Amino acid sequence: MATPPIITLTTDFGLSDGYVAAMKGVILSRLPEARIVDLCHAIAPQDIAQAAYLIQDTFGYFPAGTIHVVVVDPGVGSGRGLIALEAQGHLFLAPDNGVLSLVSGPGARAFLAKRPDLWLAPLSHTFHGRDVIAPLAAYLAAGHGPESLGDAIAMADLMALRLPVPRIDQASRQVHGAVIRIDHFGNLITNISQAELRALETSAKTLRLSIGPHEIRAWHETYSQAPSGQPLILVNSSGLIEIAINQGHAARVLGGRVSDAVLISAS
Amino acid sequence: MATPPIITLTTDFGLSDGYVAAMKGVILSRLPEARIVDLCHAIAPQDIAQAAYLIQDTFGYFPAGTIHVVVVDPGVGSGRGLIALEAQGHLFLAPDNGVLSLVSGPGARAFLAKRPDLWLAPLSHTFHGRDVIAPLAAYLAAGHGPESLGDAIAMADLMALRLPVPRIDQASRQVHGAVIRIDHFGNLITNISQAELRALETSAKTLRLSIGPHEIRAWHETYSQAPSGQPLILVNSSGLIEIAINQGHAARVLGGRVSDAVLISAS
Amino acid sequence: MATPPIITLTTDFGLSDGYVAAMKGVILSRLPEARIVDLCHAIAPQDIAQAAYLIQDTFGYFPAGTIHVVVVDPGVGSGRGLIALEAQGHLFLAPDNGVLSLVSGPGARAFLAKRPDLWLAPLSHTFHGRDVIAPLAAYLAAGHGPESLGDAIAMADLMALRLPVPRIDQASRQVHGAVIRIDHFGNLITNISQAELRALETSAKTLRLSIGPHEIRAWHETYSQAPSGQPLILVNSSGLIEIAINQGHAARVLGGRVSDAVLISAS
Repeated sequence: MATPPIITLTTDFGLSDGYVAAMKGVILSRLPEARIVDLCHAIAPQDIAQAAYLIQDTFGYFPAGTIHVVVVDPGVGSGRGLIALEAQGHLFLAPDNGVLSLVSGPGARAFLAKRPDLWLAPLSHTFHGRDVIAPLAAYLAAGHGPESLGDAIAMADLMALRLPVPRIDQASRQVHGAVIRIDHFGNLITNISQAELRALETSAKTLRLSIGPHEIRAWHETYSQAPSGQPLILVNSSGLIEIAINQGHAARVLGGRVSDAVLISAS
Repeated sequence: MATPPIITLTTDFGLSDGYVAAMKGVILSRLPEARIVDLCHAIAPQDIAQAAYLIQDTFGYFPAGTIHVVVVDPGVGSGRGLIALEAQGHLFLAPDNGVLSLVSGPGARAFLAKRPDLWLAPLSHTFHGRDVIAPLAAYLAAGHGPESLGDAIAMADLMALRLPVPRIDQASRQVHGAVIRIDHFGNLITNISQAELRALETSAKTLRLSIGPHEIRAWHETYSQAPSGQPLILVNSSGLIEIAINQGHAARVLGGRVSDAVLISAS
Repeated sequence: MATPPIITLTTDFGLSDGYVAAMKGVILSRLPEARIVDLCHAIAPQDIAQAAYLIQDTFGYFPAGTIHVVVVDPGVGSGRGLIALEAQGHLFLAPDNGVLSLVSGPGARAFLAKRPDLWLAPLSHTFHGRDVIAPLAAYLAAGHGPESLGDAIAMADLMALRLPVPRIDQASRQVHGAVIRIDHFGNLITNISQAELRALETSAKTLRLSIGPHEIRAWHETYSQAPSGQPLILVNSSGLIEIAINQGHAARVLGGRVSDAVLISAS
């Protein structure tokens, strides 16, 4: 048999329990040759937006055909549905709670995943990642298409997150954005991309960035171009404006948090 | 060759050193096609009971024939033996310190694992997970039975943990239990299962749960049935009574700790 | 096709983002049958020395031919080169910043890894682990030798870390060393090995160890030989002198830190 597609796992389970392992065990019980890669298990509990950003940012580096399983599921056991989504050549399996909001694309197809015949029995009320989603993921990895899991659902009918969108104000020559993520290094990642900066109609040579009481004017290409300990701004590896401190922890030093307003002004 | 069985690893090593990787390297050196899955490496240092609960709770989701290696080993280098245990269609390899107390079952067979011919040389005094257990695990995964590791030992002669057992008091219509685990979400998991509740001879419609100064009466099937931030009780995905807070961290909010007494009273 | 060699990953990325997963995705995109093992992702940010010690300590437990990728890269995007190193039967791929200082050996060969034709496009300025190093690692794992990545460079021309070296003072019958690592258990690992102790020309029956205000004389072979809670000294599983507390956390109890001076005196 050909190598089966990879299954990635993204959860808010952490690594201090056996929850992730139980999901892997179920997948391997159903498909012994399954190949599973941890995408991330450190999503903050119930933080759907964080998971949505992370999967958007990362899935494209995996081979086409990879099955991305996302279990951040505050509504587990309630009426929320499960979605199998085919988009950009990848498959996604997740609760219909908006966690896949950012991975659609032209030709994307969604299906309401059901197939109770595949579920674990007895079925728990609180761990559908293990009892429902893992078996369905193994089924997809065995070569079944997402349409085999249930009826099609229009993309427009999927739950969608309302995430902050950067706003360009040409009159004041400013871009209003927000911090959307803080990474392991303490870098403050904003929702402002180069597209917004280019759209800013200005001949100004300097763009300054404000966050809280701090104003930063040092734009660089890499961390090490700034003096050690000094704040800088760069376009990060996801194409987003990021506030960093060379060899330091920007979030801690600047007191930045997710959702903080970020203002970029031409002058 | 057929796909070799999976080896799961459960340790108190954490992930900040190379200890887990060294074990994997040894296994892969002995059996290049080995397939290793991390069960958990966040067992609190030397916490045999926590590992015993975790392996009991999780092993059954893996395919039959899986080899579960548990290295929580405060007595490393001392006279304690190593046990290869066959139970419920799975294999277990661990120090004889009680960590496998909860995985016996009908037909279980235990062996005193020795085979110094398989050990790494030189043998360290302090890391038998790498030098002794990993080579033995690879040997089992290569298809050798547990009896190939050493002499049989009666199940009754294995070290056993003394773990708290829930107690039913029919006179006062109460079940006395304890918190045995706190998970990543802060859920307080007790040693009381539905069996104890069913055994409680009562016609009372209400069961209230007390832990420390807190009394909880809200029984639900899922977290999301309780208002956000409110304590609730449910039967968790392991079949155990669990105290949780919807979208909150019960241990932190209620001040709960492992070993805290939990009382369920009919009224 | 034969099983490809294992690729190990050592980074300071932590596990709370998708950075490690992105590297794995790229490797698997280039070489679908790649086998990747996490060596460690908890290197303190930019701590090249810690990564150097860890890779030295761990690589040898993997099968010969394993490709060890180390991405601790404060100079990412700057002029620093990348090194492909063949040493002791293993391959290493890392920035030329000294992180491989401790893995040379007789017959070691180093190459300046370039091959922009293999890089991801577009190339980010800040994540060469994903965009440059992962594709090169996959290329090596596909069976290409390190010489295929670029020109040879003399070992003496590689960046080298200046790491503390233990010093023997025969006059005072002392060995001067330092704490080089604190592990997950809080054990204080020094740079003093048995070789230094043997070189100490003394007929003294007692060696006492001083760290900060603490003096320890209890030498043991294993942790459990010391009373619970008592400091002890042992030769650890890497052959280094280690200060530990049986069932305790030596770093916390003794207030020890990396770089602390350690003095062993015969008397």
